[in-house]
Amino acid sequence: MTYHILDAAGLRDWLVQQPELSERLGGKADDWSIREVSDGNLNTVFLVTGPTGALCCKQALPHVRVAPNWPMPLERALYESRYMQTMAPAVPGLMPEFLAYDADLFLIVMECLTAHEVLRSALIADRALPGFSAVIGTYVARTVQATGWVNQPFETGARLLEQFSGNTALTRITVDLILTDPYRVCDRNPEPEAGLREDVKALQNDQTLHLAVGRLQERFLTARQALLHGDLHTGSIMLDGSDVRVIDGEFATMGPVGFDCGLYLGNLALHLCAVPHKAAFLRDEMLAFWQNFSTELRSSLSKEGGDQWALSGPATRQDLIETFLNGILRDTAGFCGLEMVRRTVGFAQVADYGVCSTEKDRLLARQKALQIGRTLVVQGASLRSFADILSLMGL
Amino acid sequence: MTYHILDAAGLRDWLVQQPELSERLGGKADDWSIREVSDGNLNTVFLVTGPTGALCCKQALPHVRVAPNWPMPLERALYESRYMQTMAPAVPGLMPEFLAYDADLFLIVMECLTAHEVLRSALIADRALPGFSAVIGTYVARTVQATGWVNQPFETGARLLEQFSGNTALTRITVDLILTDPYRVCDRNPEPEAGLREDVKALQNDQTLHLAVGRLQERFLTARQALLHGDLHTGSIMLDGSDVRVIDGEFATMGPVGFDCGLYLGNLALHLCAVPHKAAFLRDEMLAFWQNFSTELRSSLSKEGGDQWALSGPATRQDLIETFLNGILRDTAGFCGLEMVRRTVGFAQVADYGVCSTEKDRLLARQKALQIGRTLVVQGASLRSFADILSLMGL
Repeated sequence: MTYHILDAAGLRDWLVQQPELSERLGGKADDWSIREVSDGNLNTVFLVTGPTGALCCKQALPHVRVAPNWPMPLERALYESRYMQTMAPAVPGLMPEFLAYDADLFLIVMECLTAHEVLRSALIADRALPGFSAVIGTYVARTVQATGWVNQPFETGARLLEQFSGNTALTRITVDLILTDPYRVCDRNPEPEAGLREDVKALQNDQTLHLAVGRLQERFLTARQALLHGDLHTGSIMLDGSDVRVIDGEFATMGPVGFDCGLYLGNLALHLCAVPHKAAFLRDEMLAFWQNFSTELRSSLSKEGGDQWALSGPATRQDLIETFLNGILRDTAGFCGLEMVRRTVGFAQVADYGVCSTEKDRLLARQKALQIGRTLVVQGASLRSFADILSLMGL
Repeated sequence: MTYHILDAAGLRDWLVQQPELSERLGGKADDWSIREVSDGNLNTVFLVTGPTGALCCKQALPHVRVAPNWPMPLERALYESRYMQTMAPAVPGLMPEFLAYDADLFLIVMECLTAHEVLRSALIADRALPGFSAVIGTYVARTVQATGWVNQPFETGARLLEQFSGNTALTRITVDLILTDPYRVCDRNPEPEAGLREDVKALQNDQTLHLAVGRLQERFLTARQALLHGDLHTGSIMLDGSDVRVIDGEFATMGPVGFDCGLYLGNLALHLCAVPHKAAFLRDEMLAFWQNFSTELRSSLSKEGGDQWALSGPATRQDLIETFLNGILRDTAGFCGLEMVRRTVGFAQVADYGVCSTEKDRLLARQKALQIGRTLVVQGASLRSFADILSLMGL
C-alpha cells in the first residue's frame, strides 16, 4: 500500500487487514469507534475502541501538522518505532506497548492510554499526584543502561548509531529550535510580546551566553553516550494516578544523557516560573527525579558487561562512575537552561504560562525563566551537585 | 559475481571486464604483469602493470591473512572504499587515487604507488627524508575539516555516523587490541620475552593505569568528533621523497580526533625508543606534525559554516577552538601512550625493535616504551601543551 493520509474510514479498512490488531479490538469492523485526537505538532493520532480492546494509531504527515508549509519527512515514524522497540525490554510498563508499524503508511500502532492524561495538562490543572518524576528518573537511567557503552558490548551502541543517525529531519529541529534560533534573529522566532523585546535582544547579543551555547552544541553533536528520547518534556509523558508512561520517541538519537535529563527538568522549572507557589512540590519532584536517576544508574554502571571500563575493579569503577555522573550533571544544567529559554521565546512555547492570571504575571514568569535559563547555560559547566542546580532555580 | 578469493589469473579476468581500468593499463590482458605483494595482516594485494599504467588491487579475505583461524568479515573493504571516497576531495594528493570498488568481490582498485615505500620501513632503513610528519599533520587537519561538526552542517556528521558505525568488525579489533588486551591476561597476547614478564604483569595490576585506560575507552566510544582513519601508524603511510600518501583506511570510524594523532605520534615514539640516537630527527618530525595539524585546524575552524558554534563571533570562536584543541591534545597523549604499550606487548607488535643490535638493547627499548606509554596514558588528561608530551618522551 503506498503512502496516503488516513482518515477514520481508511484506518478502519487497514485495521481489518491486521488479524492481531482486529482480534485485540474484538467484534467486527463496524463495532469499532474511531476518534481523531491529534494534539502534537507533527502527526495525526486516532484512538480506536472495540468491544474487547483499544488501540492508538499514530501516522506521520508529510508536513508539520500545525504549519502545512513546513515539510517534514515521514521517516520520523520509522525512528519512533525503532525507539519503542529498542527500549521496550528495558522499561516495561513505562511506555505504551508497541504493537505494529506499517512502513508504507508510516503508521505506528500502540497500546491506547485512554485513562491517562498528558503530564503538562495535569500540572497546569494541578491534578498531577506527587511521584511521577521518580518514575521518569528510573526511565532515563534504564534507557542509559540498555543503550550506553558501559553495560553492553560496544556493538550495541554502534548498531544504535547506525540505526538512529539518519533521523536528521527531527534532529535538525533540535539543532535549530533548541540550540541556535533563540540566540539569533530568525524568521521562525515568534514576535515577542512588547515587554520581552529587550530580553530577546539581550539573548541575541550575549557573547558569554553564546560561548556556553557553543559548548552545548558541541556536547549534543559529539557526546554520543546513549540513545536519547530526544524530546522528553512534560508533553511527552502521560499519567493515570501513579501509572506513568513516556510517549513520542520520534526525536530519538544517540547523544549526551544530560539532554534528556535537562529537557525534563527544564519543563518542570518552566512550570515553576509560571506557578511559583508550587515551589515545594516541584522541588520535591526534581529531587526525586535526580535521586532515582542517579541511584539506578550508579547501580547498573557498577555491573560489568560492556567494553567501556572493562578493566576496572570496584574502586576504579566507582571513580569512573562519579566522573560520568558529574559530566551528566553539568550537561543536564546546560540543556535545562536551553530548554527554558527556547520554550519561552522560541518557535514552540509552553502552555504553562497560560496559568498566569495577569499579563504582568506572565511577563514576570517569562523573564524569570530567561534569567534562570541563562544562568544554567552559563554556569552549568562549573556545577558540582544537584543542589547547585536547585539553588540556581531559587529552590 | 559471487565472492571468491582471487588469484592473479582471476584478477586478470575481472580486469578485462572493466573498460576504464583496462584502458588505464593499456595493451591487452596478456601484456599485464600481476604481482602479489600482500604485506599487512588482513588482505591480499596485487600490483598490476600494463604498457601505459599500473593499478593496486586490494581484496579482503574472510579471515586474518596471518591467522587463518581468526575470521574477519569481508565488509571492511566496503568501509575502506567509503573512507577513500569520503576523504578524496579533502586530501588531494595525500592518498592513492580511488578507482573502483567491487561490492561482490570486496575488492578495491586504486592508484599504484610503485615508487613509494612504507614509512615504517623507510624509518627502519634510515631512508625517510625529513618533512613527512608535516604532511600527516595537514592530512589529519583536513580530514577533521571535511568530516567534523564545525565546518559542515550537522547532517554531514550524522550521515558519516550512519555509514561508518557498522564497521564493527575492525572497531572490535581496536577495542580489544588497543583499549583492553594489553592490560589483562588474554590468549591473544603473545608470551613476553623473559625480561619483560614483570613489566607485563605490572600492566595487568596497575589500578591507576586501568582508571586512565577506562577514561580513554570512554573517549574512544563516545567522543564522535570526526571520521578517523582509525589505524594511522607508520605502516599505513607510504612515501617517495616528499610525496606522502596515507593508505589502509579500513578501520574508519567516527571518533575522537586525538586517536589518529596519538597513533601516529605513538609510532614515531616507538621508533625513538628503538633508535634513541635519532631523537633530534624524531622530535622535529613530531613538532612539525603538531605545528601543521594545529595551524591548519585553527584556520579551518575559524571559518563559519557548520551547526556547531554557529552563533559565535570571532572572540567566542577563538575560545571554543582553543578548548577543542586542548581536548585533542589530551586525547592525543593518552592514545599515543596506549599505542606504545600495545605495540610493545600486544598482539600486533612493531618491526622497529628489530633495529636494536642486542637483545639487551631491545629489552631496554621495550621497557622504555612501556614506561613512556604508561606515563602518557596516566598523565595525558592533565597536559596543557605539546611540549608537555615531548617532555614526557624525554624530548
